[in-house]
Amino acid sequence: MPIIDFRIRPPYKGFLNTTMYVKAERRDGITSSIQLEPSPAAQQKSVPMMLAEMDLAGIDIGVVVGRNSGALGSVDNNTVKEFCDSHQGRFIPVASVDPSDRKQAALDIDMAISTGFRAVNIEPGGSSPPLHTDDRRLYPIYAHCEDRNVPLIIMTGGNAGPDLSYTSPDRLDRVLGDFPDLRIASAHGNWPWVDQILHVAFRRQNLYLSPDYFLSNMPGSDDFLKAADSWLADRFLYASAFPFAPIKGYLDWFRSLPIRPKNMDRILYQNAIEFLGLTNSTTTFRTAPFEARP
Amino acid sequence: MPIIDFRIRPPYKGFLNTTMYVKAERRDGITSSIQLEPSPAAQQKSVPMMLAEMDLAGIDIGVVVGRNSGALGSVDNNTVKEFCDSHQGRFIPVASVDPSDRKQAALDIDMAISTGFRAVNIEPGGSSPPLHTDDRRLYPIYAHCEDRNVPLIIMTGGNAGPDLSYTSPDRLDRVLGDFPDLRIASAHGNWPWVDQILHVAFRRQNLYLSPDYFLSNMPGSDDFLKAADSWLADRFLYASAFPFAPIKGYLDWFRSLPIRPKNMDRILYQNAIEFLGLTNSTTTFRTAPFEARP
Amino acid sequence: MPIIDFRIRPPYKGFLNTTMYVKAERRDGITSSIQLEPSPAAQQKSVPMMLAEMDLAGIDIGVVVGRNSGALGSVDNNTVKEFCDSHQGRFIPVASVDPSDRKQAALDIDMAISTGFRAVNIEPGGSSPPLHTDDRRLYPIYAHCEDRNVPLIIMTGGNAGPDLSYTSPDRLDRVLGDFPDLRIASAHGNWPWVDQILHVAFRRQNLYLSPDYFLSNMPGSDDFLKAADSWLADRFLYASAFPFAPIKGYLDWFRSLPIRPKNMDRILYQNAIEFLGLTNSTTTFRTAPFEARP
Repeated sequence: MPIIDFRIRPPYKGFLNTTMYVKAERRDGITSSIQLEPSPAAQQKSVPMMLAEMDLAGIDIGVVVGRNSGALGSVDNNTVKEFCDSHQGRFIPVASVDPSDRKQAALDIDMAISTGFRAVNIEPGGSSPPLHTDDRRLYPIYAHCEDRNVPLIIMTGGNAGPDLSYTSPDRLDRVLGDFPDLRIASAHGNWPWVDQILHVAFRRQNLYLSPDYFLSNMPGSDDFLKAADSWLADRFLYASAFPFAPIKGYLDWFRSLPIRPKNMDRILYQNAIEFLGLTNSTTTFRTAPFEARP
Repeated sequence: MPIIDFRIRPPYKGFLNTTMYVKAERRDGITSSIQLEPSPAAQQKSVPMMLAEMDLAGIDIGVVVGRNSGALGSVDNNTVKEFCDSHQGRFIPVASVDPSDRKQAALDIDMAISTGFRAVNIEPGGSSPPLHTDDRRLYPIYAHCEDRNVPLIIMTGGNAGPDLSYTSPDRLDRVLGDFPDLRIASAHGNWPWVDQILHVAFRRQNLYLSPDYFLSNMPGSDDFLKAADSWLADRFLYASAFPFAPIKGYLDWFRSLPIRPKNMDRILYQNAIEFLGLTNSTTTFRTAPFEARP
Repeated sequence: MPIIDFRIRPPYKGFLNTTMYVKAERRDGITSSIQLEPSPAAQQKSVPMMLAEMDLAGIDIGVVVGRNSGALGSVDNNTVKEFCDSHQGRFIPVASVDPSDRKQAALDIDMAISTGFRAVNIEPGGSSPPLHTDDRRLYPIYAHCEDRNVPLIIMTGGNAGPDLSYTSPDRLDRVLGDFPDLRIASAHGNWPWVDQILHVAFRRQNLYLSPDYFLSNMPGSDDFLKAADSWLADRFLYASAFPFAPIKGYLDWFRSLPIRPKNMDRILYQNAIEFLGLTNSTTTFRTAPFEARP
């Protein structure tokens, strides 16, 4: 089975100006804390090394998620697209929009989808001012995505905002209930609200969880894994969140986890395909235009 | 030792119009998610099969909890009473009241207790509008029950309301502190707030926990079980929440858990007796009128 | 390596009037619930027996934390100082201030530090009225401590206030972010918000956790321990919270936990030294005046 890494940020142009590359020491400290070795590709900011690491790991496709966040830096969508286009078939671009400007966000979403982006990403806790996920100012964006069947990634786990309330599972629960046809992937899996977000996922079929590096040596990981190997097996997304975790080191570790092969295969590939509304053939989706799920 | 299943909803009259029987596919999906086999008695909506399942499992008594909930459907108290009366000695009736109407609720509570109901059940998150457990509009009902020594079941775990906030452990903590002589059983055990509700139970001696099917293969279950086998052993209530879990399959699974025999016996029987304010002899309480605990 | 017990309340003068000694039965019930034997020194209110228990356990130094709390009782700072002075080199005094009176608190803090106290303790949830940790009325006190490099202990776990909201990890997260140079030790470790406070500690380097007796047989302890043996090893503080746990019995139990020797040594001694801003030699700090960390 092919493998999709659902969250990769290459050391390329605008990405290099975001905190994850600028504050390299802090980033490597996090990598060590989760008991993994920092990737040399991250440390040396080398795209060729990153590609080689993907090859070595056996990662077929990376989902490239940019950023439009005052606090954590921004990456222009054109940069994301350019990077993906220049490595045909290896990467899927996700467009980031400014969640505090609903009109511009709607235009950006339409433009992004019409030019080949596969999903939209927002990081409301990093806006200025920071927004909670159920802030009413985000509702027009949610409606716009739901109406157009555009899947949405929300960074609402870990250091998602100025304090812990920006990862609140209550708030995301409300959004999922108010937009039942909007597929939402929670990047960082609303960690550390593990038991709570698992309840929300149990209840809301439109929620996908991608705890990525907060799964490794972090509180609550056992509960995430038990769900991943049972009722959440078809909505758990595999992601390294490179450069925070090494692409290969994280995959090696992930494959050692107690998840049965059938579920492991889904998590490493099929769930991302379904979330993104793509067809089941990698050859097809590499060239096909964005299509709504039937 | 005899066994009491603290939450059973038979496939009888008005129960058949509530979502748990109407949306059978959803219900069976939940049963599968918690890794149990749906009960044929539930699927075929057969009271005789349910009784046979109880016999086979060795369940002596079932606590029949109705429902007065806009969102999840309602069952008339007369139906609950009629069912219990027609199977003398096998069932204990619990009356449900509309938590949004304090005057009618007080009348209904008085009527229920005078006619043989043993406890009162409310589901405030399912009201219209939904109420949080510490909503001031519920306080007259809490006071009414406390003053009359009527034990109260509150459905405040799992899908208790439109969003996760309706299972908030903070809110129930306040109620327990404000009504220290009111015995409250949390149906679904405020899941998924496992660590938090265990703190509340550690602190408030008037709280009983009944996580029922959210114990099976769900996040936090290890912590529930450790408490059940130690300091919470005398306030943990066994319940299948039939038809969501099968009566026999759930009991078989529950008995396989690492709970010492002394505590297991309490949980399967004695705690329900004490919560309901009944005497220790099943023969007695089958006929005795409702009596306040000394 | 020497050992510091970060939270000891001796059976001495004013301490005997606080609930932990007055309500002895309740206290011993808690001790039993966490599966430890009550200390005879606590039960017999004997300082010599407590000292003998420390000797037997091999505890070199106890941090004596008083109390200024309407709900739980108060101990005059002079009593704390007098006790520590009369057992030269065995105890470190911590001054408690009334968190609801900022002007008096500032005076008390200055007086305390100038007379040899090593840290300040507040219990805002026990005030009248109770205060949450991010209440704006506390901000002058936080600023006062931060500006003077005075480490602060906040009792914000367990029964810290009238309800569970007084242990909210969101609120403490805000305080830690607003006062990045203020070292805060969370007494009782914000239990039961284990996963959440671990996230906060992962994010905020100025937070130290001291779950003390809520670690023993309580929900979430595995997650506390995994963090203590990895990325939190240099900010986890050992404390018995005597008289709730026995000094020796708790240490024996703690040393049996799966924490590697290198981290165990830090937790039993070095972290308290660093939190208190003391030098690394017990002989030195026993007589040295309070000094700011470089």
